[in-house]
Amino acid sequence: MGIPEKRALVLLSGGLDSATALAVTMSKFDEVFALTFKYGQRHEVEIEAARKIAGVFGVTGHKFLHLNLREIGGSALTDDIEVPVNRSDVEIAGGIPITYVPARNAIFLTVAMGYAEVNHIANIVIGVNSLDYSGYPDCRPEFIDAFQAMANLALKATVEREFKIKIEAPLIHLKKSEIIRTGNELGVDFSICISCYDPGENGEACGECDSCILRRKGFEEAGIADPTIYRQPVK
Amino acid sequence: MGIPEKRALVLLSGGLDSATALAVTMSKFDEVFALTFKYGQRHEVEIEAARKIAGVFGVTGHKFLHLNLREIGGSALTDDIEVPVNRSDVEIAGGIPITYVPARNAIFLTVAMGYAEVNHIANIVIGVNSLDYSGYPDCRPEFIDAFQAMANLALKATVEREFKIKIEAPLIHLKKSEIIRTGNELGVDFSICISCYDPGENGEACGECDSCILRRKGFEEAGIADPTIYRQPVK
Repeated sequence: MGIPEKRALVLLSGGLDSATALAVTMSKFDEVFALTFKYGQRHEVEIEAARKIAGVFGVTGHKFLHLNLREIGGSALTDDIEVPVNRSDVEIAGGIPITYVPARNAIFLTVAMGYAEVNHIANIVIGVNSLDYSGYPDCRPEFIDAFQAMANLALKATVEREFKIKIEAPLIHLKKSEIIRTGNELGVDFSICISCYDPGENGEACGECDSCILRRKGFEEAGIADPTIYRQPVK
Repeated sequence: MGIPEKRALVLLSGGLDSATALAVTMSKFDEVFALTFKYGQRHEVEIEAARKIAGVFGVTGHKFLHLNLREIGGSALTDDIEVPVNRSDVEIAGGIPITYVPARNAIFLTVAMGYAEVNHIANIVIGVNSLDYSGYPDCRPEFIDAFQAMANLALKATVEREFKIKIEAPLIHLKKSEIIRTGNELGVDFSICISCYDPGENGEACGECDSCILRRKGFEEAGIADPTIYRQPVK
């Protein structure tokens, strides 16, 4: 089964951040697994992006899990609510937006910790970042720390001292431009990563949602050409 | 929507413990909601039991959520593994059994906290107990405390100071016989509660699994007649 401490499980959404988190993880661990949730996203292209990214990096295993967050509701990413567009930097920084999905990272991480225990994987990697982060509370370091403490009290593997779970958030203190630079150095193909909250059928980005705005600004600041295909001319 | 602090969400499995937790909650809160997971249990009779129990108590709302823990695997309760039978008290107390479902309570509670946030419910109630408890790590007070701390760092509602999540485990320090006495006083109909790990099609208990053994002993100790229907004569 391998040594748990040398194995890592990466939460892979199909976006730029989790692809970079995967690249960082590939450089640090012997065996890397990816976990992608089909959680009722409005667009299947994200799932396809995750599949491509995992394939490019040649992960040891890629698991897809079903978990219908639409049944919980309360988010523009799972419900049929309009995603806000063309918001200014001040508006984006001004509070938690309706694209927040209640408890999403906590739910993903608890499922990941169950999967990690069953498959003898000690490290769980999540590509959250607390700068340029749209204000989601479950992307902050204090959340990650509290989650790790909880996980190590919940699992048989940790209580029986087989191994301890470590939650790694390698991008948590990076700005979007720094994430792009890191990913670029590690060979991430950003053209296959989808960040847009409302992508077209072939993955074209809207260019107007908070996520597109942060991503575009990140490429500009990093001084790296943006390979994103937009479905309309960028203003 | 009501006052979040006066509303509670009970995790209702269809067993004796969660039914008693529901009864306790009905006596303490203005509005009580129940949440039942269809998580790939081997037997649907548990779901039906939960439906009956919620109906008897007249909860404000009863939500069923799908969450296939079979995709994670690693447990006799979701996989096609034999449940151990006729174990002695020493064997039952001797370690975490294969009926342990990796991360189950953590997964249920994270989904519950998302649902609670969306529906403005501050209290989440879970019927775990740390005595007579088959040794599950996620039934201990230290797990519950760590979970609550994590939840209050994860949610928009708590970060924006709308309300705080409280995880209540009203049975956590009770022995099985004390739970049965409490439920009995509060009008729980134990004949509709299913505890068995391997029940028959009509909910008949095996009488031999750890859960049946603990339940039967609990009724004996409480001095209350056991209404459980066993599918074979009890030895």
